[in-house]
Amino acid sequence: MSIYWNSPAPLFSPRSVAILGASDRPASWPDVIYRNLTLHGFTGEIYPVNPKYQTLWGKPCYRAVRHIPGEIDQAIVLIPNHAVLSSLREAVEKGCRSAIVISGGFRESGTAEGRALEEELSAFAEKTSIKICGPNCVGLLSISNAYLPTTYGIPKEKPPFAGGLSLVSQSGGFLGNLLQSATDRGIGFRYLVSSGNEAGLDLADYVDYFLDDPATKVVGLFIEGVKHADKFWQACLKARELEKPIVAMKLGRSEKAKRAALSHTGSITGSDEVFDAVFQKLGIVRADDPDELLETAALFLDAPLPKGSGLGVLTNSGGLRGMVCDTAEKFSVELPALSSSTTTALNEFLSVGSAVDNPLDGGWGVLSSLDNFQRSVELLLKDPDIHILALQGKLPEDPNSEAARRYLQAAELARIHRKPVVVFSIFSYSVTEAGRAFKAQCPLPFVHGLDKSFKAIRSFLRYASRLPEDRKGGDTPRASVGEPTCAAAAEKIIAGKKILSEVETEKLLELYGIPCAREKLAASAREAGEIADAIGYPVALKTVSPQILHKTEAGEVRLNLRDRKEVEGGFAELMEKARDTHPEASIMGILVQEMVSEGVEVILGIHPDPQFGPVLAFGLGGIFVELLKDLAYRLPPLDCDEAMAMIRQIKGYPLLAGFRSLPPADLPALAQALVQLSRLALDLKGESFSLDINPLKVLPMGKGIKVIDALAVRAADAFDSSKETLD
Amino acid sequence: MSIYWNSPAPLFSPRSVAILGASDRPASWPDVIYRNLTLHGFTGEIYPVNPKYQTLWGKPCYRAVRHIPGEIDQAIVLIPNHAVLSSLREAVEKGCRSAIVISGGFRESGTAEGRALEEELSAFAEKTSIKICGPNCVGLLSISNAYLPTTYGIPKEKPPFAGGLSLVSQSGGFLGNLLQSATDRGIGFRYLVSSGNEAGLDLADYVDYFLDDPATKVVGLFIEGVKHADKFWQACLKARELEKPIVAMKLGRSEKAKRAALSHTGSITGSDEVFDAVFQKLGIVRADDPDELLETAALFLDAPLPKGSGLGVLTNSGGLRGMVCDTAEKFSVELPALSSSTTTALNEFLSVGSAVDNPLDGGWGVLSSLDNFQRSVELLLKDPDIHILALQGKLPEDPNSEAARRYLQAAELARIHRKPVVVFSIFSYSVTEAGRAFKAQCPLPFVHGLDKSFKAIRSFLRYASRLPEDRKGGDTPRASVGEPTCAAAAEKIIAGKKILSEVETEKLLELYGIPCAREKLAASAREAGEIADAIGYPVALKTVSPQILHKTEAGEVRLNLRDRKEVEGGFAELMEKARDTHPEASIMGILVQEMVSEGVEVILGIHPDPQFGPVLAFGLGGIFVELLKDLAYRLPPLDCDEAMAMIRQIKGYPLLAGFRSLPPADLPALAQALVQLSRLALDLKGESFSLDINPLKVLPMGKGIKVIDALAVRAADAFDSSKETLD
Repeated sequence: MSIYWNSPAPLFSPRSVAILGASDRPASWPDVIYRNLTLHGFTGEIYPVNPKYQTLWGKPCYRAVRHIPGEIDQAIVLIPNHAVLSSLREAVEKGCRSAIVISGGFRESGTAEGRALEEELSAFAEKTSIKICGPNCVGLLSISNAYLPTTYGIPKEKPPFAGGLSLVSQSGGFLGNLLQSATDRGIGFRYLVSSGNEAGLDLADYVDYFLDDPATKVVGLFIEGVKHADKFWQACLKARELEKPIVAMKLGRSEKAKRAALSHTGSITGSDEVFDAVFQKLGIVRADDPDELLETAALFLDAPLPKGSGLGVLTNSGGLRGMVCDTAEKFSVELPALSSSTTTALNEFLSVGSAVDNPLDGGWGVLSSLDNFQRSVELLLKDPDIHILALQGKLPEDPNSEAARRYLQAAELARIHRKPVVVFSIFSYSVTEAGRAFKAQCPLPFVHGLDKSFKAIRSFLRYASRLPEDRKGGDTPRASVGEPTCAAAAEKIIAGKKILSEVETEKLLELYGIPCAREKLAASAREAGEIADAIGYPVALKTVSPQILHKTEAGEVRLNLRDRKEVEGGFAELMEKARDTHPEASIMGILVQEMVSEGVEVILGIHPDPQFGPVLAFGLGGIFVELLKDLAYRLPPLDCDEAMAMIRQIKGYPLLAGFRSLPPADLPALAQALVQLSRLALDLKGESFSLDINPLKVLPMGKGIKVIDALAVRAADAFDSSKETLD
Repeated sequence: MSIYWNSPAPLFSPRSVAILGASDRPASWPDVIYRNLTLHGFTGEIYPVNPKYQTLWGKPCYRAVRHIPGEIDQAIVLIPNHAVLSSLREAVEKGCRSAIVISGGFRESGTAEGRALEEELSAFAEKTSIKICGPNCVGLLSISNAYLPTTYGIPKEKPPFAGGLSLVSQSGGFLGNLLQSATDRGIGFRYLVSSGNEAGLDLADYVDYFLDDPATKVVGLFIEGVKHADKFWQACLKARELEKPIVAMKLGRSEKAKRAALSHTGSITGSDEVFDAVFQKLGIVRADDPDELLETAALFLDAPLPKGSGLGVLTNSGGLRGMVCDTAEKFSVELPALSSSTTTALNEFLSVGSAVDNPLDGGWGVLSSLDNFQRSVELLLKDPDIHILALQGKLPEDPNSEAARRYLQAAELARIHRKPVVVFSIFSYSVTEAGRAFKAQCPLPFVHGLDKSFKAIRSFLRYASRLPEDRKGGDTPRASVGEPTCAAAAEKIIAGKKILSEVETEKLLELYGIPCAREKLAASAREAGEIADAIGYPVALKTVSPQILHKTEAGEVRLNLRDRKEVEGGFAELMEKARDTHPEASIMGILVQEMVSEGVEVILGIHPDPQFGPVLAFGLGGIFVELLKDLAYRLPPLDCDEAMAMIRQIKGYPLLAGFRSLPPADLPALAQALVQLSRLALDLKGESFSLDINPLKVLPMGKGIKVIDALAVRAADAFDSSKETLD
């Protein structure tokens, strides 16, 4: 299925507008919208529509859309849910190309009627190509042409600033709060859209449009759930291609929030871990808090990307210097030591009371002399290990103050040395008219609060460091990179099956070059003994039956059998046990497997996400996954670097890297297995198989890996992976 | 040694002041201080002292303090370090009772000269009883009498607000930034003190004074290190007694910050984990970020403590409701379900578009009608499971606005229903003159930002919930609660020893009722066999020698010996091994110990902190402590509730509580062992022993616990506990 893109362009600059459900009751939504349009200079015709009025706002008011003389270009809809569609039909007949449907009572109502109305609306939009924003939204703002059809009243004297941020929010409340806060901070916009239930245009449509807009520098998102995963994916790929950062806040880390989203815009939020994997794969910056989204956007808007991850910091107090150290460590931001030449040069003019180090406590020497400040900043920017410089400070109140001159000077030095310089504050602070005016002429980003600033800086550094790596494997990230012959053979193995046994699953894995423990199925005790003799002792025995999936828990495993006698005895015991406890099960035989006693146990898995397709999971076995939920998720395909990053991400990583007396595990072999598993995941994509390797033993370096147990289940039949991946 | 308290009272309201190192150079520190004094109405005499000037500020300027006619009450000192002491001597002869020493070049300089000067200053202060603030400080602010001798210029038109917060900061930079931010937010002070190097008064002296001040509601601290742990402890105990919250930010989570503090005010920050334990014990609220300190203080200042931990939330948007759910979960704040009667009553008048739940999305129904708002707030406050109510909102710009009326109404309802009500915002925001004016008349706390607000609420709820529990054991928390006979017997065991062997340590533990595995020392193979026969098989053998502390690593342990033959063989092997690898070691014998194969391994320890005395540590054994550093720290004594809280705090707690197929462990027995260990810790306090129990096996519920191995080392000889507690 090819992706259907919907351009929001007609929504942002209509020639004429009909307001359906118009009213001049003060503070009513239609009246607020009317004022937002007229106060800020919308010059097109506005047609009020409401059968209750003859005139409104000094204009004739129409009983229905069809009575409007001539064409209308956009409908702004504030009428009851059941009347929306018929009015839009009339509008389309009058040439209407777009509609902002503020009205609620659709999918979010949770009623069958609401759902049906929304489906009709979607179908209508598709048929007629009318661009619909909403329903159940608060409108939008197009700043460049001051077109502001939103239910939030925008005072004439305080219009939002023009700037490089375009944002789409599935929550109207979030949009309203963000608009106020960003304006308050002097952060400017191109577009702000409340996408509501997305019966017509969805999140990805807006993102795609913003990316094409040269004046949009940063895209912001408030996501409750993604409607069309493929479109979303494509839009994010495009963002990466263009190196336009997307900063997203995503609802639904908690179960309660997921339920709230469902009842509010009808969004299915999807698994939060999968979103994390998607964001990781696509280089989307995830913010966990509204303030964090704003600070991060502020930084991206005004600073060029750094060429490395070394942060230099200039403070003017010893105590604050210590705080910066604590905070940098908390957020894993690297504060490299200054080079000896930088140190020598700084020591030449910085007086007693300063501490020449990174962070640099410039003390009174730097604060009191513009010349010293300039020299300090320049020396720090020249240091080869410093890639971004953070100055402790705030927006000045007085544009002629020493502080103001310092920042303008720093901005100039940043430009000359082509390194980002950011001003951060210890506390959040209020921005005044004067501060906003200064910001308008100073190109540096000013971020607020110590934790918030360092979180933003961390995101900024990570985004910059990942760009090249992401780009490498990024060309065809959703297509298979496995050998075609491999895929065909894989399809043959799984054809028509709901469940693959351990033997079948391992056959699949070996096809992709993932080595499994030596093993063979035995039909009789004697055969088991012969196989064991061939493999060499000790061996393990496991009952193979499509009805007995969790063999260990069922007691259907015997470990460490040391000779033929034990093997033959074990065979008999297992068969008897299986017949006793699973009389209905069809027993395929008993698997005789080499015992792999050394190595670290890990688990690998493929889990099909209904929206984003197969997701890879990796973690250490045992309590790490069971108790600590210490798992890393990624989307296929993986290259070796990504696989290594995935391995390093888990808390238990040191156990693999050679912890205390443990030998370092064969990480290259493990990474290779993840890469191969990601190929398999893509090849099986259409089949929606859930595959668990549990455990896989990672042997000491140079000795490779071995799959000990594995199981694949078709998605519809798959168990809840959070509870049942473990045998 | 009795604690020497030093009252800062004379610092805050001197009758006359001499400014040493006076200058009228604009923006110079003495000039700033002079202006702060005169602009804000200090009416006492001010004597400038500087040999360079004849007159200053229109007054005669004196060559030296001794030339000042008549008495002076306070000296504000801005002269070079080496001249400070002689000038202060002259000042004391003129009746001077207090001094603010801004001058640097003392301990923080890291020079021998600086240290010597500071020691002289301290000795002088002690001898003459002059109250010294500093050196190396930025002064102080006493708001009630507008006495503002600080190097931060305070504009006449923007004096700090009067209010209930008193704060002492060891960092001058932090104080300056906090002063600005709090004033900006409309948060008012009683006292603000930069304590600097604390040659005279220290942190605890100020805290003690603030606690006695009836107008101080909340004490704020910025700590680099505590100089006198006992005084600090006593001051914090007093705060708890008076139920005056202390909100503290403590530097030094990172090693780099510790070094920075050392070079900056010469503070030894101490182990951060120990500070956490101290804060926990004393109910001090720790803030991790400057903003967090301010938000938390704002909440404590304006809200009465809640009687339970249920938070009700009122929002006006579905998306924001979801965000609140995510954030509450992130900070473990409980959002109880509304009672059915509350739900029914709310449903009666809240329209479609709202979601009646907790958080309550009041939607347009609540926003549009003051009456609906009042009914909603009242119903939420009446709900028995709601103990504190949070309203999403911001300080209104217009005191006559609907929003302003809503908050005043909510404040009134909060008063009537005696439950705290707090207003929180989604984003941080700028506060204007009008907002500050409204805050001055509205008694509700207004906290900023979603994460920050919920962190503050979490601290608020925890503080409230811990008060009664803390009080229980709080009367004599630093005194021993062990039986006197026990302490005497314990002293006898350790008398004169540097290291206690496993056998001796376990004797000590058994004295305190902590059960150990059955064991006996054998001098010969035959004796070992006899002991093993008596204990019953299987047994373990361990070499006992004061020179072989880490037996497992030395290979000096044999486990699971099943019969007499294995025991006698094992004895011989161990003796031979010890002689081979530790020819110098004196072997006390071989310990024969019962094998305890079931149970969960934990570690318990006592570690002497140089400032705060013995600290208890608890964690799970193995990778939990080695890899994840999953340890809980507390100060003795512990009661059973505190011990249980300590056990529950670790990440691995589920392994003890009965995880998957594991039986629940005997937690009461484990808690009891911690309580007893805390008694032992206090009894051994003067001896500074470091004691490690590793492992202790916690058996299934009802079966108790057993110490398997333990070792005690006198502190001077103790190993670095972070590396060496594990055998």
